[in-house]
Amino acid sequence: MTDINAVLFANEAFYAAFASRDMAAMETVWAADNPVAVIHPGWNPIFGREAVLQTWRDILKNASAPRITCLSPRVIPQGTTAAAVLCYEEIDGNYLIATNLFVREGAIWRMTHHQAGPAQKPPQTDPGANRPERVN
Amino acid sequence: MTDINAVLFANEAFYAAFASRDMAAMETVWAADNPVAVIHPGWNPIFGREAVLQTWRDILKNASAPRITCLSPRVIPQGTTAAAVLCYEEIDGNYLIATNLFVREGAIWRMTHHQAGPAQKPPQTDPGANRPERVN
Repeated sequence: MTDINAVLFANEAFYAAFASRDMAAMETVWAADNPVAVIHPGWNPIFGREAVLQTWRDILKNASAPRITCLSPRVIPQGTTAAAVLCYEEIDGNYLIATNLFVREGAIWRMTHHQAGPAQKPPQTDPGANRPERVN
Repeated sequence: MTDINAVLFANEAFYAAFASRDMAAMETVWAADNPVAVIHPGWNPIFGREAVLQTWRDILKNASAPRITCLSPRVIPQGTTAAAVLCYEEIDGNYLIATNLFVREGAIWRMTHHQAGPAQKPPQTDPGANRPERVN
């Protein structure tokens, strides 16, 4: 598996954990040996693995949380040790745009940062996307 | 200069170029040898150095553009080759929150990605910030 595909796989695992409200999977997605942070839409930034995971516990325990779908992910390598994925998030017909960061920990890429904010509806065709990822 | 300070310096150079509408400086801030992207607030993502720099030409040529100030920058290392800076941006009394990515190119750190989105007013004291940066 190339690094690009491995990073897309890690990004897909993040959205799968999010969509299925699987907190154990979310804990595996997030890096354990590197500093982490998260910027949820409209929130102040949160730093540190335990604080970041607590925000996900709070979000995922909400049984009425809307379904989330990742659209048009695109990997932007950050040297050899890190990679960013830019993608849209569709939530009940509304769109967010996200920057997801990953670092390599051993054999896998793990999330170190997530920022999502309001976005326009994505273009219907996005030839730049690495592939038409959907969670489901 | 430690890496943390070198990354903060690169982040400061970005906001100095932005605040002074210095397009030549902005061209130096952005990476030349690595893929780049930008997500301006409410925009779709833009990929590639020339397309990214064109967005900055369009923004910086607007003489009535508001003044921007960077608040509470904090470095989140991404392995050895990359680093993220999370910071607030104050623009005419409104606040954005930004993720800025940098990679090392030769002796300096250069910007590879910028996402800014709406934020709450930052806490008055932020003990986690690396130092109380301000661009004047």
